Amino acid sequence: MDYYVAPLARLIEQFEKLPGIGHKTARRLAFYVLDRPQNEAEDFADAIVSAKNLVRYCTVCQNITDSEICAVCGDGRRDKSVICVMESPKDVISLEKTREYFGLYHVLHGAISPMDDVGPEDIRIAELLLRLSDGSVQEVIMATNPNIEGEATAMYISRLIKPLGIKVTRIAHGVPVGGDLEYADEMTLSRAIEGRREM
Amino acid sequence: MDYYVAPLARLIEQFEKLPGIGHKTARRLAFYVLDRPQNEAEDFADAIVSAKNLVRYCTVCQNITDSEICAVCGDGRRDKSVICVMESPKDVISLEKTREYFGLYHVLHGAISPMDDVGPEDIRIAELLLRLSDGSVQEVIMATNPNIEGEATAMYISRLIKPLGIKVTRIAHGVPVGGDLEYADEMTLSRAIEGRREM
Repeated sequence: MDYYVAPLARLIEQFEKLPGIGHKTARRLAFYVLDRPQNEAEDFADAIVSAKNLVRYCTVCQNITDSEICAVCGDGRRDKSVICVMESPKDVISLEKTREYFGLYHVLHGAISPMDDVGPEDIRIAELLLRLSDGSVQEVIMATNPNIEGEATAMYISRLIKPLGIKVTRIAHGVPVGGDLEYADEMTLSRAIEGRREM
Repeated sequence: MDYYVAPLARLIEQFEKLPGIGHKTARRLAFYVLDRPQNEAEDFADAIVSAKNLVRYCTVCQNITDSEICAVCGDGRRDKSVICVMESPKDVISLEKTREYFGLYHVLHGAISPMDDVGPEDIRIAELLLRLSDGSVQEVIMATNPNIEGEATAMYISRLIKPLGIKVTRIAHGVPVGGDLEYADEMTLSRAIEGRREM
């Protein structure tokens, strides 16, 4: 016999598709949903469809929003002369949580990665260049991930932007705050020495 | 500003309700769903509602099924003289996977637990007694969990069944196969000694 009845098997399979969710966890989640009242299950299902239907990209910065323009781009108090370029909306949330950055954002939705067949035209670089064309932006901060793809993307974009006479900066590499030097890898450590500042 | 747009915040909140899913994982899952094509998100939502709508309890053994009678109860080759009493449908699946049990099941959907305000009338004991009334069952195996609630439930039910002249057995307690004696707790070890069998 099949151990699971079809509708349950299908739900387990759906949960298994989620990243980091194995078969046992998927089974536990599916049984949990079965044990909840009808309206809770419907709420859950509706939240999935609604999120998918209502969340779209800001026409200016490409960050996720549920309206035409995102909250950051629509906020008159933000410094419109600085744009921080990031790979994903998650990165924007991380930086927003620091409450120390008051400029605008640009979300690329990925990084250049020939291995994964992602070229410059597959991420939102054209939209960034368009934003820079009116001369109001004075600095572009490249805050792509500190890995090979992120570095390559930062390098590629900076080469396109520099000829426009706009300052391009890269976020600092170094040892993480609260980290332990013993566990820092050599690359990070050598970048930390290289980027040392007078105290 | 709120870091998440409303529909995304709602989806994260729904994922957070799932057991063992914290905020960071919920956020990761929600972003994953956002990144999938529309039809995949709809499939996921539909699987949740369908499972909730289609899965019900077998009218005989109370196990989950998508028809009137579950696959085990409807299988003519199963030994109808033995009923294995378990706490949840998950337990049934575990025992089915051994492929060594060919009797029927009865799922209680819980265990007696005064601490959690679960009494004998809150689990499917009445349905079990009804099944035993026609005299066709010769043995009831109490396979509730080997914890306080499970033991109490097994004890309670066995007292109700014994007067009917039906044999009541309890699954063996002992050291798990592949386990290490060094790590077995004293209670388990003393039960293993107590239940020793001639080789």
